[in-house]
Amino acid sequence: MKINEIGEFGLIGRIAAGFRDLIPTGWEGIGDDCAVIPWRDGESLLVTTDLLVEDIHFLRDRISAYDLGYKALAVNLSDVAAMGGKPTATFLSLGLPTDSGVGVEWCDAFFEGYRSFGVPLLGGDTTSSKSGIVVNITVLGLASNDCIKRRDAARPGDRIAVTGPLGDSAAGLQALLNNLPSTPEIAALIEAHHRPQPHLTEGEWLGRQGSVHAMMDVSDGVASDLRHILRASSVGATVDLGQLPVSPLLQDTAAQYGWDARELALTGGEDYVLLLTVGPEAADDLQRRFEAEFSRPLYWIGECTASGTPEIAYRDPNGEQNPTNYRGFNHF
Amino acid sequence: MKINEIGEFGLIGRIAAGFRDLIPTGWEGIGDDCAVIPWRDGESLLVTTDLLVEDIHFLRDRISAYDLGYKALAVNLSDVAAMGGKPTATFLSLGLPTDSGVGVEWCDAFFEGYRSFGVPLLGGDTTSSKSGIVVNITVLGLASNDCIKRRDAARPGDRIAVTGPLGDSAAGLQALLNNLPSTPEIAALIEAHHRPQPHLTEGEWLGRQGSVHAMMDVSDGVASDLRHILRASSVGATVDLGQLPVSPLLQDTAAQYGWDARELALTGGEDYVLLLTVGPEAADDLQRRFEAEFSRPLYWIGECTASGTPEIAYRDPNGEQNPTNYRGFNHF
Repeated sequence: MKINEIGEFGLIGRIAAGFRDLIPTGWEGIGDDCAVIPWRDGESLLVTTDLLVEDIHFLRDRISAYDLGYKALAVNLSDVAAMGGKPTATFLSLGLPTDSGVGVEWCDAFFEGYRSFGVPLLGGDTTSSKSGIVVNITVLGLASNDCIKRRDAARPGDRIAVTGPLGDSAAGLQALLNNLPSTPEIAALIEAHHRPQPHLTEGEWLGRQGSVHAMMDVSDGVASDLRHILRASSVGATVDLGQLPVSPLLQDTAAQYGWDARELALTGGEDYVLLLTVGPEAADDLQRRFEAEFSRPLYWIGECTASGTPEIAYRDPNGEQNPTNYRGFNHF
Repeated sequence: MKINEIGEFGLIGRIAAGFRDLIPTGWEGIGDDCAVIPWRDGESLLVTTDLLVEDIHFLRDRISAYDLGYKALAVNLSDVAAMGGKPTATFLSLGLPTDSGVGVEWCDAFFEGYRSFGVPLLGGDTTSSKSGIVVNITVLGLASNDCIKRRDAARPGDRIAVTGPLGDSAAGLQALLNNLPSTPEIAALIEAHHRPQPHLTEGEWLGRQGSVHAMMDVSDGVASDLRHILRASSVGATVDLGQLPVSPLLQDTAAQYGWDARELALTGGEDYVLLLTVGPEAADDLQRRFEAEFSRPLYWIGECTASGTPEIAYRDPNGEQNPTNYRGFNHF
């Protein structure tokens, strides 16, 4: 049977089922942004790992070595932020083709990007590769047990928010793939794609807020990622298409090139903002305090519902329900 | 500058230098089989990671999915054993080509091999790949602080031992690459290459012995690996070529095919036995107790010397010094 017949998440479910009985009580494995391992009193270790391979996650001639080092670590740090933790150590495996173009200078620039976040690199593996550049990063983080946010804690009635605009990264990728002329606007979108800002301080701050129920980061696109929360929490959701935070930059560029900004925002992925659900009674207060702390708003995009199926109903600004069926990225 | 001009270990040194000032006091990063992070009272977390890419570490049509899952984890567990620790959790990244041959059945067999060791899989990443199969594993282990063995603890006069025979794995690889007819002997050597037994209980036991000074596992071959101990400990070594433990199986097969069994034993690598140095006064006692515990011997292959250069002098059974200059595997 081909893997695409069961899909990425079918495969992950199959793997998880095979190891469930080996996991010690109180440890949390596959199924959230990070694994959770009890550490010392009141604290847990968070662990996440991500694999990036050339021609799937990046094109060597379209991303600088600096940006690749930056982004490869950023996406992992984002997973720790998504659970309310603080990254403390990283491990890097690097497979490098021995052909021209990837030499010592390339490595130096890669590690300059990697160092941007000031998180220590404690170990790894380097190897030659006959199949392009391969980057795998594992990040360890720490979190107080009562600050850890999981995907399974959303409740019917919760309001749904994201911590930043959606779709810029996907638009940047479109621009790269279509070789668009490098205007300042296009360069800014490509920068959003290559240098996503993991919401580390936001994640730690939101972790401390009891009114935040479920949280994760937006890597595959809200349309796909929100469904993970819904499934884990056994709730449904309504998302207001008119409330999706789309930057003026994306709006203008999408209009210019005939892109569907709303679709990029929902399904494009790689925004690495945080997606969270909040008890409705506390939403206004959280909004006020978030703005005071970070000088920018939380964007409210919908609500969780008591629906029996973990699906998203989309509400059009014109009142139309389910005008389309958006899907996020699936690797197989 | 090309990476092969500075080599794998030159590259690692360059990386380590760039991150040294970010590593918290009391944490140990790049430079040993595992990183060491203080855990709770008297215990540390050990972390190791290894990347395996198709056509460099394995050939898809020469290794079964079961064996690849088995071996990929075995080599990581061996790193934890090498520091005296006990593996407690694993993380797996898997890049899979979507072409034929790697389907759901392949995955099921891979995970059956992976499960052989009973160590939990707590997370990971799955992705499609345009560049063959990519496997990255990170293993977390635990060890009492006073049982952790490092590479830098060898002293002049220490006796040098390995915990099992050398060269079988390299001979198995030769047999695979040369398409040798599958006699029971050849099959046994290929099994040594595909299903190395990480010396987990041996590593934990040796970790508890104060007379064991330095320890690591044999992955690149004793000729290369021992040099890591020598460099880290600022000692030299003499190795008795006549004392290298070569299995009767390897001896016979090498004779049949005209291989240099001694060279395979010294430079072939992937044996995943443990290499250790032992205070000379305690060596006989350790030998006796190791045999009582594991019903097989420790093999003594040489001694550490007070030499100012971290090089190995080879002693021939006929008394000749340095009959050759053996080198281990270097990835670039």
